[in-house]
Amino acid sequence: MAEPHVISYEALLARVQTIFERAGVRPESAQAVARVIVAGERDNCKSHGIYRIEGCLRVLAAGKVSPDAEPEIHDAGKSVIEVDARGGFSNPAFYAAKDLLAERARETGLAALVIRDCLHFSALWHDVEALAEEGLASLSMCPSYSFVAPAGGKEPLLGTNPIAFGWPRPGAHPYVFDFATSVAARGEIELHRRAGKPIPEGWAVDREGNPTTDPDAALDGAMLTFGGHKGSAISTMVELLSGAMLGEFMSKEALDFMGGTDLLPRHGALVLALDPQSFAARSGRDPIVEGEKLLTAIGAQGARLPSERRFEARRKAMAEGIALSAAEMAQLDRFEASGLAPVDA
Amino acid sequence: MAEPHVISYEALLARVQTIFERAGVRPESAQAVARVIVAGERDNCKSHGIYRIEGCLRVLAAGKVSPDAEPEIHDAGKSVIEVDARGGFSNPAFYAAKDLLAERARETGLAALVIRDCLHFSALWHDVEALAEEGLASLSMCPSYSFVAPAGGKEPLLGTNPIAFGWPRPGAHPYVFDFATSVAARGEIELHRRAGKPIPEGWAVDREGNPTTDPDAALDGAMLTFGGHKGSAISTMVELLSGAMLGEFMSKEALDFMGGTDLLPRHGALVLALDPQSFAARSGRDPIVEGEKLLTAIGAQGARLPSERRFEARRKAMAEGIALSAAEMAQLDRFEASGLAPVDA
Repeated sequence: MAEPHVISYEALLARVQTIFERAGVRPESAQAVARVIVAGERDNCKSHGIYRIEGCLRVLAAGKVSPDAEPEIHDAGKSVIEVDARGGFSNPAFYAAKDLLAERARETGLAALVIRDCLHFSALWHDVEALAEEGLASLSMCPSYSFVAPAGGKEPLLGTNPIAFGWPRPGAHPYVFDFATSVAARGEIELHRRAGKPIPEGWAVDREGNPTTDPDAALDGAMLTFGGHKGSAISTMVELLSGAMLGEFMSKEALDFMGGTDLLPRHGALVLALDPQSFAARSGRDPIVEGEKLLTAIGAQGARLPSERRFEARRKAMAEGIALSAAEMAQLDRFEASGLAPVDA
Repeated sequence: MAEPHVISYEALLARVQTIFERAGVRPESAQAVARVIVAGERDNCKSHGIYRIEGCLRVLAAGKVSPDAEPEIHDAGKSVIEVDARGGFSNPAFYAAKDLLAERARETGLAALVIRDCLHFSALWHDVEALAEEGLASLSMCPSYSFVAPAGGKEPLLGTNPIAFGWPRPGAHPYVFDFATSVAARGEIELHRRAGKPIPEGWAVDREGNPTTDPDAALDGAMLTFGGHKGSAISTMVELLSGAMLGEFMSKEALDFMGGTDLLPRHGALVLALDPQSFAARSGRDPIVEGEKLLTAIGAQGARLPSERRFEARRKAMAEGIALSAAEMAQLDRFEASGLAPVDA
């Protein structure tokens, strides 16, 4: 095996930004997209790292995402701020509205950001980490493609519907969780199929709704939510709050609109930001100090906090650089030289 | 077995209200508490029905809940409204602030209600159903007693931390879920212990953190959350948002304060209310019509919605009356005559 190539965070960021700019994406958006992709790679979330570049370029090539959309903010001075991504990537839209959202949450105690009509491909932890840096707690959620059956059902109707939560910690990375409400990612079933291996029980049902460990039957049937009927209820809530409530696509409509799963989904997203200092003010307690009691007690009994592995990978990457394989480096070269074409050829 | 005694909803409500009034609870609070207890019985949620009266009377007798506390609303006209239960029951506090919360949510898009220093014994679905009747989506959560270990841990630190969500449906009961984030209720482990039966795997760990099916070892150890590390993350979020963030007790402090589990816990609660019409306005879509597409599609594939059994029991109870056993009727008679004393004697 070849030695991995080590590249600094900054150098990788510049390269990925260049790739998107050469694909026609406006510089501000290229930068926002590059930041979340390189953050994924830095945190060793390979499925949200540079692996995502190809998928993004494919949607650009298909004309299903607007490369030059400028996010448009709509703010009536109330608790709900909207940003219309206008068919562009979600990340530039989020970053365009983030400061306003944080400011509003501090003014009023809590505020919501509605992201409209965006191509959403990144993990949600970016949003909640950015708000935790502002001292805010936050919840972020969005639909996806309808691959998942509700508990007791058999037809795919719900998305893998991720949900993320962030809570600020002084002098430390925030408390962050971010997970799909499906029991597994669709990509994991696909990997089992390619490897000719059965999937674990509880991941999926076949077309008739029977439990299956056959990856082909699972892909032809429906995935299941984590945690049985409780996870199914949470997934349904994500569809309602970040799809129906916003007047944006739910997961089934997103799939119908894109006409298949080859391209990343378009829909909306919802971010709630809460200011702990406002909520706690009358109690006389410091909510962040109180939160630390819980979080340090979790660590003290040897339990891991969510995202700990990710933060550890981040520390390493920022100190020592990001290790990429020769194939990954070659792909970056190709994308930089001429976009998606040579890959599809 | 004796014929069950059938009593109308209204008659049972009057009896339970009388019991609380005779126990010294101010009439408005007695009514609010009676309403949630009788609603539980009506919906065949026996664990939140008249079974709860004894527990409430016990806390009253112990002087750990204030019978005559008048909820005190604090409203700065922003997005966070507070109601101080002043050591009284949670339900009168919620109902004292509900209309204001709904009004604020419609004005600004979303609003939060902080309930401070309350004795919380009821299911959360009352709150989210009441807000769904106002056309609002809502989330309600609170800590409880620390019986549950975080994923990968072994010491009880988290509460059973319920979370409830409501979504309005036109001409139908709302979409409502309400569940503990623990895999099972503590009472269920106790029932297995009394019956000398092992508990299912995955419910609990012993003192050393090893999985156990022995109910004694489980009660001596820690319960587990539903859905593995994902459920544990959600339970942690509930502690942070409805405990630390409010400056109110988290589950461990609630247990320490009450000095044991014989009495119901005191802590705060958080309710978020969201106005779908505000959120969807710019989309030109009706969010409730969109939500119906999802909810009817879930039903159409033969999957049950959460709370369906409860609503069915409600229909039956309102049409035919509520069936109580002779022992339950006798207990109501005793409580009505002289409060808790004859039960303890």
